Amino acid sequence: MTSIESQTLRTGVCYYPEHWPESRWAEDAAHMRRLGLSVVRIGEFAWSRLESPDGELHLDWLERAIDTLQAAGLSIVLGTPTATPPAWLVNRHAGIYAVDEQGRTRGFGSRRHYCFSYLPYHADCARIVTALAKRFGKHPGIIAWQTDNEYGCHDTILSYSEAAIAGFQQWCRQRYTDIDALNTAWGNVFWSMEYTDFDEIGAPVGAVTETNPAHRMAYWRCASDAVVTFDRVQVDIIRAHSPGRDVLHNFMGNFVEFDHHALSRHLDVATWDNYPLGFLTRDGEDPDEQRRYLRTGTPDSSAFHHDLYRGCCGGRFWVMEQQPGPVNWAPYNPAPLDGMARLWAWEAFAHGAEVLSWFRWRQAPFAQEQMHTGLLLSNGEEDTAASEARQVADEIAKLDASELRLTTNRAQVAILFDYAGDRAQRIQQPDGRTYDPLQHVQQVYRACRELGLDVDIVSSDAELDLYSLVLLPNITIDDPVLAERLSHLDATIVLFPRSASRGVDMAIPDSLPPASLRKLIDVTVIRSETLPPEETLVARGAVASTITAWRERIRSELTPAGRFEDGWGFHYTQGRVHYINAIPDRPSIRVLLKSLCAEAGVAVTPMPEGVRTRRRGGLRFAFNVSDTSHSISDLFEEAAADRIVFGEEQLAPAGVTVWREA
Amino acid sequence: MTSIESQTLRTGVCYYPEHWPESRWAEDAAHMRRLGLSVVRIGEFAWSRLESPDGELHLDWLERAIDTLQAAGLSIVLGTPTATPPAWLVNRHAGIYAVDEQGRTRGFGSRRHYCFSYLPYHADCARIVTALAKRFGKHPGIIAWQTDNEYGCHDTILSYSEAAIAGFQQWCRQRYTDIDALNTAWGNVFWSMEYTDFDEIGAPVGAVTETNPAHRMAYWRCASDAVVTFDRVQVDIIRAHSPGRDVLHNFMGNFVEFDHHALSRHLDVATWDNYPLGFLTRDGEDPDEQRRYLRTGTPDSSAFHHDLYRGCCGGRFWVMEQQPGPVNWAPYNPAPLDGMARLWAWEAFAHGAEVLSWFRWRQAPFAQEQMHTGLLLSNGEEDTAASEARQVADEIAKLDASELRLTTNRAQVAILFDYAGDRAQRIQQPDGRTYDPLQHVQQVYRACRELGLDVDIVSSDAELDLYSLVLLPNITIDDPVLAERLSHLDATIVLFPRSASRGVDMAIPDSLPPASLRKLIDVTVIRSETLPPEETLVARGAVASTITAWRERIRSELTPAGRFEDGWGFHYTQGRVHYINAIPDRPSIRVLLKSLCAEAGVAVTPMPEGVRTRRRGGLRFAFNVSDTSHSISDLFEEAAADRIVFGEEQLAPAGVTVWREA
Amino acid sequence: MTSIESQTLRTGVCYYPEHWPESRWAEDAAHMRRLGLSVVRIGEFAWSRLESPDGELHLDWLERAIDTLQAAGLSIVLGTPTATPPAWLVNRHAGIYAVDEQGRTRGFGSRRHYCFSYLPYHADCARIVTALAKRFGKHPGIIAWQTDNEYGCHDTILSYSEAAIAGFQQWCRQRYTDIDALNTAWGNVFWSMEYTDFDEIGAPVGAVTETNPAHRMAYWRCASDAVVTFDRVQVDIIRAHSPGRDVLHNFMGNFVEFDHHALSRHLDVATWDNYPLGFLTRDGEDPDEQRRYLRTGTPDSSAFHHDLYRGCCGGRFWVMEQQPGPVNWAPYNPAPLDGMARLWAWEAFAHGAEVLSWFRWRQAPFAQEQMHTGLLLSNGEEDTAASEARQVADEIAKLDASELRLTTNRAQVAILFDYAGDRAQRIQQPDGRTYDPLQHVQQVYRACRELGLDVDIVSSDAELDLYSLVLLPNITIDDPVLAERLSHLDATIVLFPRSASRGVDMAIPDSLPPASLRKLIDVTVIRSETLPPEETLVARGAVASTITAWRERIRSELTPAGRFEDGWGFHYTQGRVHYINAIPDRPSIRVLLKSLCAEAGVAVTPMPEGVRTRRRGGLRFAFNVSDTSHSISDLFEEAAADRIVFGEEQLAPAGVTVWREA
Repeated sequence: MTSIESQTLRTGVCYYPEHWPESRWAEDAAHMRRLGLSVVRIGEFAWSRLESPDGELHLDWLERAIDTLQAAGLSIVLGTPTATPPAWLVNRHAGIYAVDEQGRTRGFGSRRHYCFSYLPYHADCARIVTALAKRFGKHPGIIAWQTDNEYGCHDTILSYSEAAIAGFQQWCRQRYTDIDALNTAWGNVFWSMEYTDFDEIGAPVGAVTETNPAHRMAYWRCASDAVVTFDRVQVDIIRAHSPGRDVLHNFMGNFVEFDHHALSRHLDVATWDNYPLGFLTRDGEDPDEQRRYLRTGTPDSSAFHHDLYRGCCGGRFWVMEQQPGPVNWAPYNPAPLDGMARLWAWEAFAHGAEVLSWFRWRQAPFAQEQMHTGLLLSNGEEDTAASEARQVADEIAKLDASELRLTTNRAQVAILFDYAGDRAQRIQQPDGRTYDPLQHVQQVYRACRELGLDVDIVSSDAELDLYSLVLLPNITIDDPVLAERLSHLDATIVLFPRSASRGVDMAIPDSLPPASLRKLIDVTVIRSETLPPEETLVARGAVASTITAWRERIRSELTPAGRFEDGWGFHYTQGRVHYINAIPDRPSIRVLLKSLCAEAGVAVTPMPEGVRTRRRGGLRFAFNVSDTSHSISDLFEEAAADRIVFGEEQLAPAGVTVWREA
Repeated sequence: MTSIESQTLRTGVCYYPEHWPESRWAEDAAHMRRLGLSVVRIGEFAWSRLESPDGELHLDWLERAIDTLQAAGLSIVLGTPTATPPAWLVNRHAGIYAVDEQGRTRGFGSRRHYCFSYLPYHADCARIVTALAKRFGKHPGIIAWQTDNEYGCHDTILSYSEAAIAGFQQWCRQRYTDIDALNTAWGNVFWSMEYTDFDEIGAPVGAVTETNPAHRMAYWRCASDAVVTFDRVQVDIIRAHSPGRDVLHNFMGNFVEFDHHALSRHLDVATWDNYPLGFLTRDGEDPDEQRRYLRTGTPDSSAFHHDLYRGCCGGRFWVMEQQPGPVNWAPYNPAPLDGMARLWAWEAFAHGAEVLSWFRWRQAPFAQEQMHTGLLLSNGEEDTAASEARQVADEIAKLDASELRLTTNRAQVAILFDYAGDRAQRIQQPDGRTYDPLQHVQQVYRACRELGLDVDIVSSDAELDLYSLVLLPNITIDDPVLAERLSHLDATIVLFPRSASRGVDMAIPDSLPPASLRKLIDVTVIRSETLPPEETLVARGAVASTITAWRERIRSELTPAGRFEDGWGFHYTQGRVHYINAIPDRPSIRVLLKSLCAEAGVAVTPMPEGVRTRRRGGLRFAFNVSDTSHSISDLFEEAAADRIVFGEEQLAPAGVTVWREA
Repeated sequence: MTSIESQTLRTGVCYYPEHWPESRWAEDAAHMRRLGLSVVRIGEFAWSRLESPDGELHLDWLERAIDTLQAAGLSIVLGTPTATPPAWLVNRHAGIYAVDEQGRTRGFGSRRHYCFSYLPYHADCARIVTALAKRFGKHPGIIAWQTDNEYGCHDTILSYSEAAIAGFQQWCRQRYTDIDALNTAWGNVFWSMEYTDFDEIGAPVGAVTETNPAHRMAYWRCASDAVVTFDRVQVDIIRAHSPGRDVLHNFMGNFVEFDHHALSRHLDVATWDNYPLGFLTRDGEDPDEQRRYLRTGTPDSSAFHHDLYRGCCGGRFWVMEQQPGPVNWAPYNPAPLDGMARLWAWEAFAHGAEVLSWFRWRQAPFAQEQMHTGLLLSNGEEDTAASEARQVADEIAKLDASELRLTTNRAQVAILFDYAGDRAQRIQQPDGRTYDPLQHVQQVYRACRELGLDVDIVSSDAELDLYSLVLLPNITIDDPVLAERLSHLDATIVLFPRSASRGVDMAIPDSLPPASLRKLIDVTVIRSETLPPEETLVARGAVASTITAWRERIRSELTPAGRFEDGWGFHYTQGRVHYINAIPDRPSIRVLLKSLCAEAGVAVTPMPEGVRTRRRGGLRFAFNVSDTSHSISDLFEEAAADRIVFGEEQLAPAGVTVWREA
């Protein structure tokens, strides 16, 4: 086995020493090492064992745990326990709880029972984090710190508590300075919603009908900022006491409730928690897809997030929690196909992950997650994923030292992703939810991946110069600086519906959408319509495109590529800039992307259903989540059998094959 | 263009001068006139600009706006702003807000944030209305006043606030005088629900299970009365200060939450707000119909309401708000077919409207309705409906002076409509909502219209002597006076299920339903059953009728027209009185209506799918919302090409053709 | 007609003298007797007529009612009125109401408006029950007392009021003694949920996400115990003052919210309220079944409950309320097929009922149940079920005196039923509710009944020695005593998924499931997965079994009877013990049961669809709820025409035939 120090592809696991007898710790650590694991995350829910009501700290047991793990050769990520303040602590704070949209207090009994805007809790967090950082900050076993756990999990970003409303009033004061400016920016003259003082401002919920979109957008921005502020308190303390260690947080999947780009600015590494089957049965909206991929997850679910989070901290990302078997929390919890634990690990590495860490070491026999599997059964014997973890470690050992080093290849294709843009679309979504703006981005991503493309997902202030194809599926908020930068690119640029359709306070731009992007292409959106779920329209031209959900009527001197039966145009092009004024369905997006790649000079390798490929450094990976085997050399010309590092020439279901590119 | 004074078919628009720079007002007014508009409604949400927290009034800007509009030749409808009290005002009233069925306060942030029963707010309304009425009551530009806006919108009739409960206790005291009388009337001995004092009475919500239907009915009657009382405050003030002007209110579509007949008694004109596509996607329950009529609305949705509201104020009605393009508030908001803005306008006029007013002049770039289209785009250029508005004005000009005068033709067919009857059926509806009592009335109406009939929809105290066919689809509450009047009619009379099945306090009449109507026909309802959505039963006789949802078992000496397989009879007839003891499906209603018309001597003209006709004075109108063209002369014998006033002989989709009857 | 004294099959009715003029009582009583009724239940909602706010009791009218009924020859069951405390009484108790999961108080206005844990109400109940028991306890007309009415109806077992939480803290104190024991038992170290004092414990609702299953299970056990305690107060008073009378309570159908076995321990007779069509449209999940049995109820719904409640009080059970026609409370309320009132009565007697009592005598013209039919119409004339009641009485008269005596035949097949086991499965059910643990038991029961078997449903401490086939569909909580007893049986024993999968505090047993049952069969459950509703898997072996919803992966030395495509085994057998590690669909359960009966030596008589049979004493009954007639002698060899007591040889839809076995 490769020595840990030289290895940049590392596997790990999440462990709770406080759940098990101390006598078991050393055996657990040794067992982890036998599976090739070298990273272990601990501590992130342990507050009730770290501090008692009398203020006494109990850190000795944690030091013994750290020492034991380190002694076995494991590197430790220490979590701060702020996601789970104990009962005695919350009982001291009448206002600590979040309040939901219906006015119900979200109380004690599970986790995340605090409102980000409740400032006295920041002091509690600072106290426990300081204690931990001082005690363990320079411990040689500690390589990184995780702040809190899964910010926003269980819908905890938006709160309507008194603290949240007070925080919002203060945020508005700072942003707008005087109340008339706010009234004007929000259009409060409408329905006499004008305030005479910042103190009159409430939360945009609980009104008789829909509240002002400007109000909702501001409330969301404030809530997103509050998460960043909350996190920053801990990061500053850790950096002060624990030099040289990475500070990170574990983000989630299919989750866009706060601006992850903004929070990532003060982190070293973006990590995320990957539960492909949980996401499938919780979030999937296509029953046929759910059925087909029930035991593998959809082909692009993990990859999308790897690419999204790789774009958050300059390329550095980990998977902090990886599903090993059935989970407990989704509507249905099927078992993954044998081999998927291995496939998911290699998929993460292929997309640039430094560490892949399974959740959790051993199934808990009690409490909320007792039906969440681990690498071990609840009785301590190995469950099925343990052997796959061992296999991954053995396969890492087959790589050259140079191949182990992290290489973030720049892709030829960029998707610009904007959290505020996503939010703006949610705020003005058809009631019946014909489409979800995040799913729209994922459909565009998926079409790229089906064409065999590597993709970078970046924020709108990222460097764009070297991309050949730049896709803007959710840049809803007009951004003149971005428009200016795009106008200088030598690339194919693709705008999707609602691009630059709103100002920062949700007003329709005076020049009509796409506002400042109109300098790229001569189109004006004069009407939008939303369509019921089953309604599709066909635009005919050189190719026929089927569209759903959202359609825009364009006024332009340009000749559209197609026309709908009622005369509305579809797909306007000026030079290498394209405006796609409706939501194409999946097959139509794929056809469209293919022609855009041709224009952009990006070579495509169409993949069979369920097969995906990705390059990292000089390696090329192929993954198969279909129910059919495929010959690698049939699919990839360069994939000669003698270049395969591991995996089979016949890529079976749940198979991974890796070869060195010529 | 015809001069305004002589014209009784007028078009207009809703305008918000406070949303736009004063410098723009004159241009807007001139532009309105260029589109042939002559009526403009303003002011109904402007309170925050009319009064400040210090009590100062700011009416000068409004006067300048009125003057500017009048100067351009526009007649003004001035709205009272009481639907939107500003934040500073509501903050002075702890108890002003309505409370919903779940106990949640319905707060500030949108509109209609007041409880009708909160009496201190009546004083605020009186203050602002008095100020407006005194200042503008005799202004020559003002032709009418609109009180408040859309009473009941966003489910605001029923409130469970402390004020509402106190008001209800007071209402009960007045109605029942002593508590034993109430206990007896409501049957409170059941489940020991007897009160010992009026103070013990609460709202009929929040109990462990279903509350007493008598309690719910009384609560609804009280709430409906509260709306009338609230409106009356304003009407009395306006009449005192603004002689000769019409006082009106804008009612809604598919809305029966209070007794519109009762409120209309103190109005001059009933107006309503017509959003055919919004109603379709919000209220439509048949997906096929939604699909077929996605861009036109269903054929009878607008007409039903025109006929309903024409019956409210002795024949006088307007459309105060008419959809011009996509709206913002329905689950999906498709664009209407080109031509529909014109069709809807002429449909209103054909049914007797005096004024057709589009909502709104210019799309707002901000706030809740920014996705609601207008005649102008948000940037001030014309949107597509503007040219249709111009066309309507041109077509009005083609009519003779005599044809412009309002003529409310009495139809041969009357539908009796009773708001309390509708409510009683809702209170005792199957949980699963197999049918909606309003939709049942609309199905009966639709069958008439499909046979080419004009229909009057009237309250049960209307004059009925001249009708040949009188339909009672929702006269649920036993009314001996009505029964007596019906017994003297020389007409075919049709009773539907649940007729006279309850007393005013929801008790089953001692004589069993249809109670006093049994003097018209010898039937007794001995059992009712409700059926699941998919369940249909067929009654066989001379014709087969398919029924759904609700069926009654009849004890009678009469021989029914048909029998169900299990022996229950269907459709009892005595002389010219018919009791239809189940809910027929649409085809069966049509067959039934046809035979009833034959008996009644009413000539029918069966219409093709989506085509409708209507007479007004000497004119006959044809409308087409199908996707097929039809020849007018094929459909109507008298429609010779040389009698056409405007429109084509080939009635295209979205087409209107008008001719003079021989 | 047989004299009442010697008759053990008796029919009765529920009557509300307080709803009708006293002058009517004697005529009603005489009419009841003319229909052959001999039992009448009264009084259970009459509190507002029994006590006034000044504390005065009004029992004279009730005595006159009892005297009148007795004089006519009726035996009286007197209900305590504690399900409906009057308004004046509840207004004296701020904390009396239950609070729902959302924190909403469940107030006055219907019934069951009290929280079981609110102790001051126990004193009110004791006062009124003492008054009634003292006055009427020895009245010769009274044969039994019913406590309260339908405990738990309208979801009233679980309450989250202050009283409920205080009661729960006290319950925890008694059960766990010290807080560390509770923390350990519940696994509260997880997510830092550890308490430092019992006072910190709240209800397991209103948290940010899912609460601890141990917490929920404990809360349910406490709530179930509270019902038993509440009932016990009344039972003790009644027994003290009314010697020799049966004390009973009326349970409900498809209702498992508290432990009925525990409550039954202090009752004499378990009675229940049977509404087959209400249960069908409220609880049925299969639309085809709902359609097919819309007017009869499903074939096994009534029988299941008869057998379940027969197992509660040592074999003694009644049907206290029997649906006579349409009810008012289900989503849809169709009329039963003519004959079903008779069929349901005989089905109850066939399963061992002593008394079958219809609800209600006369349809109420007012209040919540005015659409609930009775034996009489609301105007006092007979409704259709009256003649069927008369027929049943005539048929009872055809039986020999010996046949009238109650004989509870022991069946060859036992189903062990455990309320806590059911609850445990609900607490950890897939979100999407693929299956309901009660329905799973009912499917197993149904398969037995389709094979013509009589079944006993018993608690897990019942005597099991004489059964040939013992089925354990919901014994979820590990019970070493039961395991030991089972290990000594000479019977075929069948374990279903989740057997012994949890400890009393919901922890996974250290030895893994099925824990102590592993002494019966060498299987270990190492993984569970839950499947979406449409997902089915097929296990192939000697027969193919289709499974849904829940599947377990087994580690065992045994060879399974079948295997799934992915290699997981299905159906493990060791000796005569079977572990069924997934949920078979209905056809597969039937096939499985048939082979198990063969092994157990239990003879089967497969029934056609909708036909069922049952033995009682020397009689055999056949019932038909299909839409086809069947010849009795074709179905049952011994059913010679000359042995028929009543009913026809051709068993028509809704038919009942009874013959003497050879």
